[in-house]
Amino acid sequence: MFRTHTCGELRLSDVGKEIILSGWVQRTRDKGSLLWIDLRDRYGITQLMLEEGVSQQHLLEKARQLGREYVIRVKGRVTERSSKNPNIPTGEIEIMLDEIELLNASKLPPFTIEDKTDGGDELRMKYRYLDLRRNPLKQNLALRHKLALETRNYLDSKGFYEIETPYLIKSTPEGARDFVVPSRMNPGEFYALPQSPQTFKQILMVAGYDRYFQIVRCFRDEDLRADRQPEFTQIDCEMAFVTQEDVINTFEGMAHFLFEKVKGVDVGRFERMDYATAMKLYGSDKPDIRFGMQFVEMKDLVKNKGFGLFDEAEIIVGINAAGCSEYTRKQLDALTEFVKKPQIGAKGLVYVKYNADGTFKSSVDKYFNEAELKVWANRFDARPGDLMLLLSGNTENTRKQLSELRLEIGNQLGLRDPQMFKPLWVTDFPLLEWDETSQRFYAMHHPFTSPKPEDFHLLESDPGKVRANAYDMVINGVEVGGGSIRIHDRDLQKKMFSLLGFTDEEAQNQFGFLMNAFEFGAPPHGGIALGFDRLTALIAGYDSIRDFIAFPKNNSGRDVMIDSPSIIAQQQLDELFLKVNMPQK
Amino acid sequence: MFRTHTCGELRLSDVGKEIILSGWVQRTRDKGSLLWIDLRDRYGITQLMLEEGVSQQHLLEKARQLGREYVIRVKGRVTERSSKNPNIPTGEIEIMLDEIELLNASKLPPFTIEDKTDGGDELRMKYRYLDLRRNPLKQNLALRHKLALETRNYLDSKGFYEIETPYLIKSTPEGARDFVVPSRMNPGEFYALPQSPQTFKQILMVAGYDRYFQIVRCFRDEDLRADRQPEFTQIDCEMAFVTQEDVINTFEGMAHFLFEKVKGVDVGRFERMDYATAMKLYGSDKPDIRFGMQFVEMKDLVKNKGFGLFDEAEIIVGINAAGCSEYTRKQLDALTEFVKKPQIGAKGLVYVKYNADGTFKSSVDKYFNEAELKVWANRFDARPGDLMLLLSGNTENTRKQLSELRLEIGNQLGLRDPQMFKPLWVTDFPLLEWDETSQRFYAMHHPFTSPKPEDFHLLESDPGKVRANAYDMVINGVEVGGGSIRIHDRDLQKKMFSLLGFTDEEAQNQFGFLMNAFEFGAPPHGGIALGFDRLTALIAGYDSIRDFIAFPKNNSGRDVMIDSPSIIAQQQLDELFLKVNMPQK
Repeated sequence: MFRTHTCGELRLSDVGKEIILSGWVQRTRDKGSLLWIDLRDRYGITQLMLEEGVSQQHLLEKARQLGREYVIRVKGRVTERSSKNPNIPTGEIEIMLDEIELLNASKLPPFTIEDKTDGGDELRMKYRYLDLRRNPLKQNLALRHKLALETRNYLDSKGFYEIETPYLIKSTPEGARDFVVPSRMNPGEFYALPQSPQTFKQILMVAGYDRYFQIVRCFRDEDLRADRQPEFTQIDCEMAFVTQEDVINTFEGMAHFLFEKVKGVDVGRFERMDYATAMKLYGSDKPDIRFGMQFVEMKDLVKNKGFGLFDEAEIIVGINAAGCSEYTRKQLDALTEFVKKPQIGAKGLVYVKYNADGTFKSSVDKYFNEAELKVWANRFDARPGDLMLLLSGNTENTRKQLSELRLEIGNQLGLRDPQMFKPLWVTDFPLLEWDETSQRFYAMHHPFTSPKPEDFHLLESDPGKVRANAYDMVINGVEVGGGSIRIHDRDLQKKMFSLLGFTDEEAQNQFGFLMNAFEFGAPPHGGIALGFDRLTALIAGYDSIRDFIAFPKNNSGRDVMIDSPSIIAQQQLDELFLKVNMPQK
Repeated sequence: MFRTHTCGELRLSDVGKEIILSGWVQRTRDKGSLLWIDLRDRYGITQLMLEEGVSQQHLLEKARQLGREYVIRVKGRVTERSSKNPNIPTGEIEIMLDEIELLNASKLPPFTIEDKTDGGDELRMKYRYLDLRRNPLKQNLALRHKLALETRNYLDSKGFYEIETPYLIKSTPEGARDFVVPSRMNPGEFYALPQSPQTFKQILMVAGYDRYFQIVRCFRDEDLRADRQPEFTQIDCEMAFVTQEDVINTFEGMAHFLFEKVKGVDVGRFERMDYATAMKLYGSDKPDIRFGMQFVEMKDLVKNKGFGLFDEAEIIVGINAAGCSEYTRKQLDALTEFVKKPQIGAKGLVYVKYNADGTFKSSVDKYFNEAELKVWANRFDARPGDLMLLLSGNTENTRKQLSELRLEIGNQLGLRDPQMFKPLWVTDFPLLEWDETSQRFYAMHHPFTSPKPEDFHLLESDPGKVRANAYDMVINGVEVGGGSIRIHDRDLQKKMFSLLGFTDEEAQNQFGFLMNAFEFGAPPHGGIALGFDRLTALIAGYDSIRDFIAFPKNNSGRDVMIDSPSIIAQQQLDELFLKVNMPQK
């Protein structure tokens, strides 16, 4: 027997018991006459003890050989500690040892197995099995397990079935790039790994399953930006005979339940905001509403006052940074540098200090007098002590730039507390996005999203204006997920494909099975998909998803622990009738 | 609003309520003055009713246009039926209609949507969304959902974490053939899809996660035998600091719980049988112990009596088919044909009828007299009225052949009731299997399985004799799953790879990460993996897994609904630096 108890469970009430524990040596402390070992397992740490003159000499010698991360099995008696440690649940007891068995030795780990480690990213990825021993990662994966379990129990209680959809599916050029899988039995043909089970879940609605969900892996072969993974996990859901309101209420209920259950937090009713408002007030379709600092448009007040930058601009828009009028020249320069970074791309930043004494100091004093700036302040609802920051230019870019600035100021002012949660539904997204480069429309969500019935008439005349029955769940400025009411009518689906530039033949070839299914009694339906990695990180209060995935890949899509991808045997290529044509250097 | 209730929930107590339902038209019956519609959804069927002279004329006309599988939304009042249907939960009420809204029409389905359908296999696969509407498939997928959920809750209650392991891993030549995934970001390199998360779950044990599970998709690119799928689902588990007994008890407990929970059946304590006994008594490492008919070895009794077939044989072994002495010539010929089928391969069958009057009639009367056959009967524990059946030849093949015959007789005698469950642990498997063709050993389970410590000494001298700490869960003759205690020592793992013919370099290249991990304090560990598709089918009482998978592939690995695999665009191949060399016709 390897253990009678775990290293997290013994208490004062166990004193006197003969017990067996197994685990890892976290550290040993050798005071000469006394020797302690901290023994660790998933459940906690228990202090083991040996005493010169009391314990057998060979045990002391054995204990002195133990290094960090050695795996041992020990036998002993639970005793009360003389100096208790109130910081750990087992802190009132220690084990007086009778036996030590070495189960496995350990080389010295290349970084410390502590909450704060000294290992760099690449080293920690390579020795992921050591990194995963650290408490923060254990807590992350425990949280992830708990969240998945509670998600399943919640959806089951609401009548959803979890139904597994295939991973070997069909490649379709719409959307992101597919990972493909050559078929040996069908030479020259390929499967694709799913970017999402979208068409299958719609098929399940046509098949009458009414409420489907799946916690499911999805795959996208994209150039990896920071914190993107080629494989990621979704909570994928679909419902039949529902309106947008039904879907929103169901998944607001789920989010509510999850925060309550795993975090003990009541996140309250979700706010609602349509896409146009979100863009106007926050310059983003995923606004962080933990703080206000809404956009204020100024064009009517500032045009034609001789300030060229404003006069040429399509939009002049700003935010009020409350209490920041004392920002120094250096701080203001830093903000200007921030918005001028290439990835943000503003030309410059206009500031107006509303000083505590009621006077104004601005970067546009040449063009606007105190009286005018007072009118600005009224528009901004600014008070003495505040700082107004304005950007100008074309509407789309300027709003994006100001959104970045707003988040930066929010960070600086500590307004983005990771332990406060402000959820929001963003609704009424545009159905289509125009792409200048390819001179065609793309689906903003995907080609199966239903236009709003009241906008049907615009499909021919002004497709860019058509709004969709689509909605995103946004929490703290993070898009946790999105969904839509789907098209369930074959003719409307065909029209949608044609708006997206598919020929009838292409549409039939790629999505024929879905359109055929729509001919056999497809019910109205809709759904949502939530990013599970992201949701878990968010609930834990983290930005990055990497430490919420047991075995993540790096930014080149490599698993550096197993050293994959790798070359395969010639025989494997031959069996697949494939030849690698390496790129010319 | 699409519905106030589902089609399965209205009862007598709801009479008088105004309700809204949505669903599919199962059938309409038009008696002229009265018209009924059976409306179906996932939850049941509700009868709708219209009456000439009472209902509005336009409603009757609308109803008469409805075809099978049309999707409608109706409004009406719950009324008590005059002629009740006790076979369905809603059979006491019907809905007097006020409104019918057509949500979607349907073409005539190519087969009937009934419990017994008239559709053939390929047609049902192509229109899977229609086949999935049938009750038996709905029940199968509902059962699968329930089983997965209860599995998770059980394992959670035992302290297991569900931890997701990657799907894009590394190709290794050991075991079955991998599906590979070309990496665009790493030209010329490939990921592989996991045949199981074996090495990752072991890494998780090294990382201290103590108890891991995952319900996970696995992939094998094998030529598909009937009822094999290229992707299938496993309940995959691993535990640290355990002996074989700990693993067996935990998963016997889980099976117990699942049968109780979803089937209401107490399957009792699992029997235990070592591999050698299973082979000797049943000729199979997955014996069906719902019935006895154990093998009886006869060599000592029958050798050197002048019957050449027996004299040359390595083994002569038989079974007693109780109560079958009246089998006709035709039935006996059919049994002989059965064992001579190429996939079974016996040369012939010896029978001995122990007639009800106590006399004997056999196919070997020339060589054995009544007194001798009486001795046989004693050995077989046969009684008058029984039929003894014997095969002879080399041990391995003859046992396999007799095992097939035993199962066939069991089928004929109705001894294999799919609603009776007899679980069994088969233990003490050989560690290695010798392959004549390649003149090398293969791992019987996989290269990570630990030899029994008491057989360590045979590893050098007689590796074929070494037994493993491996165990299979067998229910009703079906291998539900298998597992083992793993090697956790780097040197033993290296030795194992070398026994399997790996050079040190190959071992390091393919499994270096695992052997490296073993150097940093790997705990003793072991686990199991259960076939989830198979387990679900078994619990439902079915042989075939295909109708327990929402979207299965056919025997050529094709999904005929979506028509995959398929050719991909030249641009996709170019991006992957791949060229297809089609095989010469």
